[in-house]
Amino acid sequence: MLKKYRLTKAVKHGLSHFDPNDTGGSVSKEEIKDEFEHMERKLRNLQDKLFASKTNAVLILFQGMDCSGKDGVIKKVLSNLNPQGFRAESFKQPSPEESAHDFLWRTHKVVPAKGYITSFNRSYYEDVLITRVHDLIQDEEAAARMKHIRHFEKLLTNNGVLLIKIFLHISPEFQLEKIRERLSNPEKLWKFDPSDLKERDYWDSYIDAYEDAFRNTATDHAPWHIVPANERWFRDYLVLRIILSSMEKLDLAYPEPNIETTKLLEQLQSNTSLSQ
Amino acid sequence: MLKKYRLTKAVKHGLSHFDPNDTGGSVSKEEIKDEFEHMERKLRNLQDKLFASKTNAVLILFQGMDCSGKDGVIKKVLSNLNPQGFRAESFKQPSPEESAHDFLWRTHKVVPAKGYITSFNRSYYEDVLITRVHDLIQDEEAAARMKHIRHFEKLLTNNGVLLIKIFLHISPEFQLEKIRERLSNPEKLWKFDPSDLKERDYWDSYIDAYEDAFRNTATDHAPWHIVPANERWFRDYLVLRIILSSMEKLDLAYPEPNIETTKLLEQLQSNTSLSQ
Repeated sequence: MLKKYRLTKAVKHGLSHFDPNDTGGSVSKEEIKDEFEHMERKLRNLQDKLFASKTNAVLILFQGMDCSGKDGVIKKVLSNLNPQGFRAESFKQPSPEESAHDFLWRTHKVVPAKGYITSFNRSYYEDVLITRVHDLIQDEEAAARMKHIRHFEKLLTNNGVLLIKIFLHISPEFQLEKIRERLSNPEKLWKFDPSDLKERDYWDSYIDAYEDAFRNTATDHAPWHIVPANERWFRDYLVLRIILSSMEKLDLAYPEPNIETTKLLEQLQSNTSLSQ
Repeated sequence: MLKKYRLTKAVKHGLSHFDPNDTGGSVSKEEIKDEFEHMERKLRNLQDKLFASKTNAVLILFQGMDCSGKDGVIKKVLSNLNPQGFRAESFKQPSPEESAHDFLWRTHKVVPAKGYITSFNRSYYEDVLITRVHDLIQDEEAAARMKHIRHFEKLLTNNGVLLIKIFLHISPEFQLEKIRERLSNPEKLWKFDPSDLKERDYWDSYIDAYEDAFRNTATDHAPWHIVPANERWFRDYLVLRIILSSMEKLDLAYPEPNIETTKLLEQLQSNTSLSQ
């Protein structure tokens, strides 16, 4: 089932080939409730082993249009993780210090150390998306950046970072509905940014920029996942499945006790007092 | 009820006055189950307002002996927070770079910005605890550090940081029981550090150092809370109550919409199309 949403090389079809309303066909919202809880427990267990073994790190990167649910999916799928081994990073407009460095600098600083999981709400991909849409960089510079991204992602994966790249795919109609929702709910009004409405005019340019990014950066070791996100429950379910299936391949295990601990265990078994 | 556990000035009685087995008297583990869930929802709601308003920050600092449950309480009480507005920091042995700076440098770097909650698993208090117990600093240096801590905490609270300092109070018998537990559970064995057993010999020196720290740093704006922690359920319940009661005093509220948003809302009400 997951294969359908995974891009490991040049996309043959554009994004229009993927339906933002897709809900997987064979599952329903009610049916997956128990399965979802079961998967959450599995994820916590994998996180515990990851933290104990310190053999790998996990970086989950979310991209998508405004209102595509990047905040929501992080809250829903990842807030059950042990916060001591998990960090949610998000990237806004670069600060003057960040702009004075190369475009990978600010994200590189916060990639997860071995044992840890980090999520990126937006990422270095913005530097080949919003910048292209608004003509801040030319195609040549964009191509050079894609190459840097490929090298950077290779550096991370070579060092044991599992890189999970997720694009939350919504329709323009869905986005408008979400904007209306924000405007009509006093508790969500603060999230509304009037410039979101203006960005809607650039929808097609964003799609072009995304498709070009996928073509250039979808690889076997760092595939893109196109997640239909008009239906929140399916978005959450599919994202969790993708994360689990990727982490299961790491074959994580609790480490063996060290020599000192093994000795202590032997003492315990021979009934020597522990209290010294 | 909370007053009993709060220290705002010099402790008249030592820690021996507080019972690590205390469970509040009037509540039972079964009775608080629903209340606990209700309180968790309240905390998430307060976090949302904190994040939206950006008027304050919250720093929750945990100290306690090995095995007192610092990891556990953060996992149990704080893992329901939205990870995008919460960070769990922990401080181990300082790195060479950290040691080359003043003792407040590494913690100052990661205090929460307005809108955010951060927990500290251990803190700058270690620099007047473990260092004193092992005679790495003398009383005079310790007194100077306490003064720096008071000034530093004043700086934070003056800048809108709500500072919640929690000491998890356990008995030496409870600690031994926990060490045994770790040694007998293959999934917890990796957490066991043989040096924890050696530190048990310094129990009384640690108590002395803690009492001196409380005497010098318990203030109205940054009180200490002594949380009985032999019973995990009461520990979690009391910590959550302390956090809620402290945050409620901030009178957090969602911000008013800005002028541009207000105009848009008026357009919406007069039925102008949003889709432009």
